[in-house]
Amino acid sequence: MSEPVSTRLRGQFITLEGTEGVGKSTNLEKVCEELAALGIDYFCTREPGGTAVAEKLRQILLEPCAEQIHGITELLVVFAARAQHINNEIQPRLARGQWVVCDRFTDATFAYQGYARGVNLDYVEQLEQWVQQGLQPDLTILLDLDPALAMQRIAGRSKDRMEKEQLQFYQTVRDGYLQRAQQYSRFKIIDAGAPIDQVAQQMTECVRQFVKTVAGIGSDSA
Amino acid sequence: MSEPVSTRLRGQFITLEGTEGVGKSTNLEKVCEELAALGIDYFCTREPGGTAVAEKLRQILLEPCAEQIHGITELLVVFAARAQHINNEIQPRLARGQWVVCDRFTDATFAYQGYARGVNLDYVEQLEQWVQQGLQPDLTILLDLDPALAMQRIAGRSKDRMEKEQLQFYQTVRDGYLQRAQQYSRFKIIDAGAPIDQVAQQMTECVRQFVKTVAGIGSDSA
Repeated sequence: MSEPVSTRLRGQFITLEGTEGVGKSTNLEKVCEELAALGIDYFCTREPGGTAVAEKLRQILLEPCAEQIHGITELLVVFAARAQHINNEIQPRLARGQWVVCDRFTDATFAYQGYARGVNLDYVEQLEQWVQQGLQPDLTILLDLDPALAMQRIAGRSKDRMEKEQLQFYQTVRDGYLQRAQQYSRFKIIDAGAPIDQVAQQMTECVRQFVKTVAGIGSDSA
Repeated sequence: MSEPVSTRLRGQFITLEGTEGVGKSTNLEKVCEELAALGIDYFCTREPGGTAVAEKLRQILLEPCAEQIHGITELLVVFAARAQHINNEIQPRLARGQWVVCDRFTDATFAYQGYARGVNLDYVEQLEQWVQQGLQPDLTILLDLDPALAMQRIAGRSKDRMEKEQLQFYQTVRDGYLQRAQQYSRFKIIDAGAPIDQVAQQMTECVRQFVKTVAGIGSDSA
């Protein structure tokens, strides 16, 4: 009886984080494949975005733009998109027991807008409370890689507004992620510099372990 | 010497407020005509909007939309647009002595998102501090009219997402505006139900009086 019903019954919320070039897209597929293999009903989504309105806001953030976009503007647009995403997609799905896998969430906002753009971290925390009302990921997988290597990987790609930032920016983003990972036990750090097969195997193992733990909690309290 | 230099030299910031159908556009022209007649260098703008990025955000707020847009989302998008507008247009212009006349500003956010949509007023105040960093209008002209009459006036117009709200919504917006007008001495309330010529004359008089006061302050401290 120590576990409230809503937590036992609600779906699990998994987020995937990392800077550009760490192989997030490929490894997101790995997470989803493993959940499917384990027979878990899941929904895969991304931030900023995940609803029609939130995707329009994403576009404003990412398209190259002559006008200077300020850190506080980015922060407010990201959380506006998040409010739509949480209220219209994430919460209703979790509430009916579906799992949600999300490509980036609020840890990215702390890392990018907070640590790297220098927006007051108190602002980020305040918005997190207003918009998330206590919602937090149950598992956050951080794909970690030296940004110098990550940028080599995406050297040939066409880049959006955020991806055009310089190496120093991404080093601060990475440091921000690593600081958050030290603070919250929901983080699992995966070395994205390892050979692709090995990274994929670690992803699969990480998801499998997490599902086992959740199933354990479920059967304990049943 | 009691007046700091930045206040004496910076341009004045005039905002115009009111619900839909009070004749804001026509009367905004009156304000600008009077400033021009008095030889004052001014810039006329609007909110949400006023920069390329802020206008894109405005469009998301106003275009009819199948997805439910939450009060907190509106609030964050409005302040994101305001951050762009203030940093890239309003502040630089005021700083170099130009006056700025703005069709709606933060009083509208309190009235629409706060009072009418029911978003926590503390959130609005907090964002006002973060984004405005102390910037407030020097004069706010509130065109006040019973929303039942105002809605009759716009009955034939094609309406955006906000204009499609019901009478009760606009009554709460009006009440919100009137409450703010009681709190801040920068407000001048004009009865928008008076005959058009009379309203126009009151607008002109209001601007003339304000300019006289400002000129008085300038010469006192010179």
